[in-house]
Amino acid sequence: MFRRLVTDNSSRIIFLVLDGLGGIRNDEFPMTALEAASTPNLDALAASAACGRSLPISIGVTPGSGPAHFALFGYDPLAPENDAGRGVVEVTGVGFDLHDDDVAVRGNFATIDEHGILTDRRAGRIPHEEGIRICGKLSDNIREIDGVKILVMPVREYRFGLVLRGDGLSPEVNETDPQKTGLKPLRPEAMNPAAGKTADILDKFIKKATEVLADEPAARTTLLRGISKKPSIEPFNSRYGLNGAAIAAYPLYRGVARLCGMELIDTGFSPAEEFETVRSAWDGGHDFFFIHIKKTDSYGEDGNIEGKRKVIEEVDAALPILLGLKPDVIVVTGDHSTPCAMKAHSWHPVPFLIGSDTCGRDDVDSFSEAACDRGSLGVFPASSMMELILANAGRLKKYGA
Amino acid sequence: MFRRLVTDNSSRIIFLVLDGLGGIRNDEFPMTALEAASTPNLDALAASAACGRSLPISIGVTPGSGPAHFALFGYDPLAPENDAGRGVVEVTGVGFDLHDDDVAVRGNFATIDEHGILTDRRAGRIPHEEGIRICGKLSDNIREIDGVKILVMPVREYRFGLVLRGDGLSPEVNETDPQKTGLKPLRPEAMNPAAGKTADILDKFIKKATEVLADEPAARTTLLRGISKKPSIEPFNSRYGLNGAAIAAYPLYRGVARLCGMELIDTGFSPAEEFETVRSAWDGGHDFFFIHIKKTDSYGEDGNIEGKRKVIEEVDAALPILLGLKPDVIVVTGDHSTPCAMKAHSWHPVPFLIGSDTCGRDDVDSFSEAACDRGSLGVFPASSMMELILANAGRLKKYGA
Repeated sequence: MFRRLVTDNSSRIIFLVLDGLGGIRNDEFPMTALEAASTPNLDALAASAACGRSLPISIGVTPGSGPAHFALFGYDPLAPENDAGRGVVEVTGVGFDLHDDDVAVRGNFATIDEHGILTDRRAGRIPHEEGIRICGKLSDNIREIDGVKILVMPVREYRFGLVLRGDGLSPEVNETDPQKTGLKPLRPEAMNPAAGKTADILDKFIKKATEVLADEPAARTTLLRGISKKPSIEPFNSRYGLNGAAIAAYPLYRGVARLCGMELIDTGFSPAEEFETVRSAWDGGHDFFFIHIKKTDSYGEDGNIEGKRKVIEEVDAALPILLGLKPDVIVVTGDHSTPCAMKAHSWHPVPFLIGSDTCGRDDVDSFSEAACDRGSLGVFPASSMMELILANAGRLKKYGA
Repeated sequence: MFRRLVTDNSSRIIFLVLDGLGGIRNDEFPMTALEAASTPNLDALAASAACGRSLPISIGVTPGSGPAHFALFGYDPLAPENDAGRGVVEVTGVGFDLHDDDVAVRGNFATIDEHGILTDRRAGRIPHEEGIRICGKLSDNIREIDGVKILVMPVREYRFGLVLRGDGLSPEVNETDPQKTGLKPLRPEAMNPAAGKTADILDKFIKKATEVLADEPAARTTLLRGISKKPSIEPFNSRYGLNGAAIAAYPLYRGVARLCGMELIDTGFSPAEEFETVRSAWDGGHDFFFIHIKKTDSYGEDGNIEGKRKVIEEVDAALPILLGLKPDVIVVTGDHSTPCAMKAHSWHPVPFLIGSDTCGRDDVDSFSEAACDRGSLGVFPASSMMELILANAGRLKKYGA
C-alpha cells in the first residue's frame, strides 16, 4: 500500500546493521554484550531517538542471514519470490554475475577420513589464501560435466561458490551436509524428476572433486548447500525512490544488497574503516547507506561476550564519523539476535533506534535490549522498518485526505 | 473473525476522540502538548485504565482524517470498499442524503487575479455566513448542466459541497487544486473515457461559477477536490450490535460517522458543550457515543502548543460530565498524531486509554505519549480498537469451548 505514497527529496539515510546485535541474559551471562559495552555515543543517540524492538521474521522464528536482511530491506522474507538461496547470495556477494538459468551452490571444503566419514565440516577453517589455491585446482581440473559448464570460485576461507551453467538445470536438489561429523556426506538427491540431471551432475562433481583433492591434508572433499537459482527481486531503488549503497565486507551481505540492486562499495573490515568508506561516498549521489558490521554475530556464535562487547565499543567509538555527516535519518539495529548465551542465531527481537528531526524521542536514554523494551515503537516487524525510515526522511506522503 | 462473537447487553460506551492528539518532542518542543497540559482527571482515569499506543494505518503511514476515523470504527482503512472520498464525506457531514449514483465534490472558494492565477487557495478564509451567501448565488445561477442536476451547499467558511445528479457520471476525474498559489487552477481531467462526461460538466461548472463570482472580492473561483461516489460501508450498528450516536461539530467527522450509519446529534463546539450533549442524549436509547474534539488537531497544524494544551485542559476540566454518567466503558484517544513540532498530521502512534471494570489497570498513572509507551496494550492497530471496546463492554463471547 505505502508504495504509492513514496515521494522523493534530498534527504540522506544511514542504516547501520550490527549483525546478530541482540542478546539475552541468563545465569551465566547476567548482562548482554550490548549492556556490558560502554557506549556513550549510542546512548546519547538513543536519548534523542525513538526506540523499540524489531522482529526479524515472526515470533519465535530464528532467521538465517539472508531472510533477515531481506526483511530489513522491506521485502517479505516469507514470500517465495524473495527467497534467495544461500548459493545465489554467496556467489553474487563475491561479484559473480549470475544468469537467470544458472544454478548456484554454496560449498564448504571439508575433511573426511579414509572411510569417507566426515571429521571436520570446515576443513580446519583453512585460511582464505588456501581456499583460493584449492578453488584454482578444482577450476583447472573440472571445467564441464555432461555438457554443463562448471564454475568454482573462492568465497572466504573454507567456503566456495559453485555455479552450473547449461540447459535443463533445476535447484530442487537436497543439500549434502549432514550437519555433524562422524557421518558420511549425503548424496545430492533430486526432489523431483526434473532435477534428476542436476543431482547427477552435482554427484559427479563431488566425486571428481574428491579425486582432485585426495592429496590435500584438510580440504579433502566438498559439502554442497543452498542449491538455488536467482530470484526476481523488485529493485530496492525503484521500490523506494532511493539510490542505495552497500558498505559491507562479507560476501553474503554484499550478495543480498546486490540482489536488491544496491551499489556495492569496497571497504575495509573494521567499523572505523567502514564508516570512513561512507564518509568518502557521502556526496557521491547515494541517499541510502546500508552499513554491515559482521563481527558482532561471529563473536555471538562463539559465545565470546568479550569479543562482542569490544566490537560494539569499536562501533560506538567510530560513530562520530557517521554523526558528523549529519544524516537526515540514522538507524542502528541488527538483522537478528545472536546471544552469546546461545552461541547461535535466535528469535529474540532486536534493539532498534531511529534518529531524525521527526522521530519523536521517547523516554529511552541508553541503547540496550531492556532499554528498547521501553521505547515508543514497541515490538514491530523488521519488514516495516523501511516505511518508518521513509516517513522519518519525509519521503512518504499522507494517506487519504 | 470476532464478528460471530458479538453479543448484546445493556452496557453503554463513551468513545472520546481528540483529533490529532499525539505529539512528539524535539529540541524546540521538549514536551508534547499532552505532557505540558495539566490533566488531573485524565491522569486519574489513566491510573485506573489500561493504556497503550494506537497505530492508525500502519507503521510510518501518515493518515488523512477520513481513513483514520474509519480505522477507529474498526473498518480496514486500506480496503477499497471503505475508501470514502472527501467529497462524499463532506456533503454527508452537512446532512445531505447522497444517492448511489451521485458524484460528490469538495470545493474551496479561491481568489484569482486578472490573469486567472491563484492568489489565495482559501479566499481569505471568508466567514461562514459569506460562504452561505455565495453558495446561494451559485445555486440560483447554476441548476443544471447538460441535463445533470447541480447542487451546491455550504460546508464551512470557504468550503462548499457540490453534488452532480444524473446518468452516466463517474468520480474518476482529477482534482483541480494545484496545491499552491502562483499557478492557474488545473482543468478537471477524466482518468478514463467513461469519466469524460463528468469532467466536461465539472469544467463547465467551474467556468460558469467563475462568471457568476466575477464581482466577488475574494471568492472569485472554485477549486474542486475529492471527487467521489458513495461507498457501500457495512453499517456500524449491525456490525457491532450497537446503536451509535455521533457528537461531532465538524462536517468531515459527522460525514464519516453518518456513512457508517451512526445517528448525528447536534452539538455546540466546546468540549463542555459536546459533553453536555452526551449527557442530554444519555438515556435516549444509544449505547455508543462517539465524541469528536476538533481543535487539538487545528492547533497542532498551526504549531500552536499553547492552544493545543488549552484544549486538552478544557477536555480534562469537562471530563467529570462524562464520568458522572458512569459509562461501562470509556476510551480516550486520537485518530492520529498532529505534533506541533511538525505542524501536520504524522505517523506516530497515538496515546490510548480504556477504562472499564475489566480493563486490567496497568502501571501507567498519567496520560501522555511516553506514559502510554509503558502501558499494557503496547502498540496496536487502531482498527482493532472496536474489538477491545466490545470485550470491555462484555459484548464479545468466548472463542471456542
